[in-house]
Amino acid sequence: MAVTYELIKRCPQTGARAGRLHTPHGVFDTPMFMPVGTQATVKAMSPDELKAMGAGIILSNTYHLYLRPGADLVAEAGGLHRFMNWDRGILTDSGGFQVFSLGPLRKITEDGVNFRSHIDGSKHFLSPEKATEIQMALGADIIMAFDECVPYPAEHDYARLSTERTTRWAERCKQAHTRKDQALFGIVQGGMYKDLRSQSVRDLIALDFPGYAVGGLSVGEPKPLMYELLEHTAPQLPENKPRYLMGVGTPDCLVEGVMHGIDMFDCVFPTRVARNGTAMTSRGRLVVKNAEFARDFTPVDTECGCYTCRNFSRAYVRHLLKTEEIFGLRLTTIHNLHFLLDFMKKMRQAIIENRFVAFREEFLANYRLS
Amino acid sequence: MAVTYELIKRCPQTGARAGRLHTPHGVFDTPMFMPVGTQATVKAMSPDELKAMGAGIILSNTYHLYLRPGADLVAEAGGLHRFMNWDRGILTDSGGFQVFSLGPLRKITEDGVNFRSHIDGSKHFLSPEKATEIQMALGADIIMAFDECVPYPAEHDYARLSTERTTRWAERCKQAHTRKDQALFGIVQGGMYKDLRSQSVRDLIALDFPGYAVGGLSVGEPKPLMYELLEHTAPQLPENKPRYLMGVGTPDCLVEGVMHGIDMFDCVFPTRVARNGTAMTSRGRLVVKNAEFARDFTPVDTECGCYTCRNFSRAYVRHLLKTEEIFGLRLTTIHNLHFLLDFMKKMRQAIIENRFVAFREEFLANYRLS
Repeated sequence: MAVTYELIKRCPQTGARAGRLHTPHGVFDTPMFMPVGTQATVKAMSPDELKAMGAGIILSNTYHLYLRPGADLVAEAGGLHRFMNWDRGILTDSGGFQVFSLGPLRKITEDGVNFRSHIDGSKHFLSPEKATEIQMALGADIIMAFDECVPYPAEHDYARLSTERTTRWAERCKQAHTRKDQALFGIVQGGMYKDLRSQSVRDLIALDFPGYAVGGLSVGEPKPLMYELLEHTAPQLPENKPRYLMGVGTPDCLVEGVMHGIDMFDCVFPTRVARNGTAMTSRGRLVVKNAEFARDFTPVDTECGCYTCRNFSRAYVRHLLKTEEIFGLRLTTIHNLHFLLDFMKKMRQAIIENRFVAFREEFLANYRLS
Repeated sequence: MAVTYELIKRCPQTGARAGRLHTPHGVFDTPMFMPVGTQATVKAMSPDELKAMGAGIILSNTYHLYLRPGADLVAEAGGLHRFMNWDRGILTDSGGFQVFSLGPLRKITEDGVNFRSHIDGSKHFLSPEKATEIQMALGADIIMAFDECVPYPAEHDYARLSTERTTRWAERCKQAHTRKDQALFGIVQGGMYKDLRSQSVRDLIALDFPGYAVGGLSVGEPKPLMYELLEHTAPQLPENKPRYLMGVGTPDCLVEGVMHGIDMFDCVFPTRVARNGTAMTSRGRLVVKNAEFARDFTPVDTECGCYTCRNFSRAYVRHLLKTEEIFGLRLTTIHNLHFLLDFMKKMRQAIIENRFVAFREEFLANYRLS
């Protein structure tokens, strides 16, 4: 198998687990947050900076790479790893989430999705076979089945039909997937309905994927509902395989995801808010751009050991953001990604040392939701 | 003296010279190109990246820092070096060039210049005393006298009156300057008139500055005219002091400047064209953004050893530029600055090895002007 999960330690009180994922491009610790490199680059970051902060795997987007520069070009470059000079793990999503987000620009059939490019309006077609073929050309270590992310809210009937189709599509992806050096993960859907979530898990397990993602959460539903569905779904997934919660990346959601036994996460949140001038800290968000920090010569986060916090003040970072300097975006991005990766390491250590429950409680007591 | 020039080697055939400049923040080799960090950051670069490529001194802009974040704030931060975490040399210009460039937004009197901010239209006043005071607060190693850069073209009368005022202003700057850990450089003006250039040199030498800049060149005049004036002016400057040619940074102009005995240069050119997708190479400019490089998997410059050329292809850099990714701007900026700093090192080595004339001829034979 291209990817194997090694369980290191299980939390005695919760579903949390510490492990390791073995991939063709190295081994990384779990739980792990995957920085998002939409267009074959994690915005504002260099591969070296990502390595320095301990990123073991990044995510890239099939939809975007298919449009620019094109999967054939990436294949010609020797695959995505070589193209972007990243020799650790890469996961590509299927493009499903992006094309479904196009709204009126797309049309779904049993066969696949017809859509128009958000860049130039050109016509395209994506199907389970096509999405798998593109991902084989890109050459990530982990690729995702082509699915429909059930919107929120959705009627039970719609969610059922969509989820059943996602299962049929997952089977077609599996048929189309022939690269032995890649792992194809299935994606659990089912909307906000527990019966559909259970059905989706059962059907995908029957197809025997080397890993499973929980999709369709964090799509606008209230957090308690998300946590309820996560608690319902995650424990049903096979213990010996990695579990990936898609599109989740705020500290509070990460703690809950880990508690329910999730191993991998991704989200544009940390990099996106960084570019808006917001820093993530262990106590909540800090809007560095705010006037109150103009003469604050302390680091962004006094508890942080990242490049930004070791070398620059809030006042300097704010000055760069206010004057729209690229280096400002670099510094906030470095901080946020370092913070999240470090946060995952701390959770993992807590699991290993049998104190995850206390870690979670202390975190929630100090964290200011915003 | 805060800054001293050490002559290492003189070219026997030309005015070219290799030396070293000793500053309160380290020693750097000359001839040296100074990357421009307009707003207390060299656009898209980190201090570490600048050090890695051998930058010994950078330039920052008094006008911009005065407006944002303000000289008092920088002083409160512990000075510009600490504010931006740069422990090597810094030179600040006087702000004169910027306020004179404001056109209708400024008004000149003998006392100084009234102007409106290009950001919010607020009213300000800059004079020799004020510009010196601001630069003392910023705390650069080398600061510049407040001058008027004579526009091109200009009548002899205008150029004469302006140059004479610049001399009077230089004297006022010297009176106002009290920091012993900074060197205040005088700026030679005189427009395109040799008699005025000679007069300006004589008057400034009488004021005994620790270094001299040649200003008012590369302001729109034809290159042969610029070279002629440079050849006329530079040899008149004291041999034992550093000579700085302001606003010049294309390889062909750098070679000519070095040939006439210039030690220091600055220009936004390499960083600005980088952000437009143009790479500088030993053979001329390469527009990486062009379609012809879409599937070119060779480095931007095969003769270059920079981070960009060691790790990434033209195809990848082009993809990043086309998709407006920040990392693309970083990669082209790194390449251009590395190229120029390396180019200066090669010229210096050629001077030391008594082969500068041959170096220049070979360079000019291969370099495509554009």
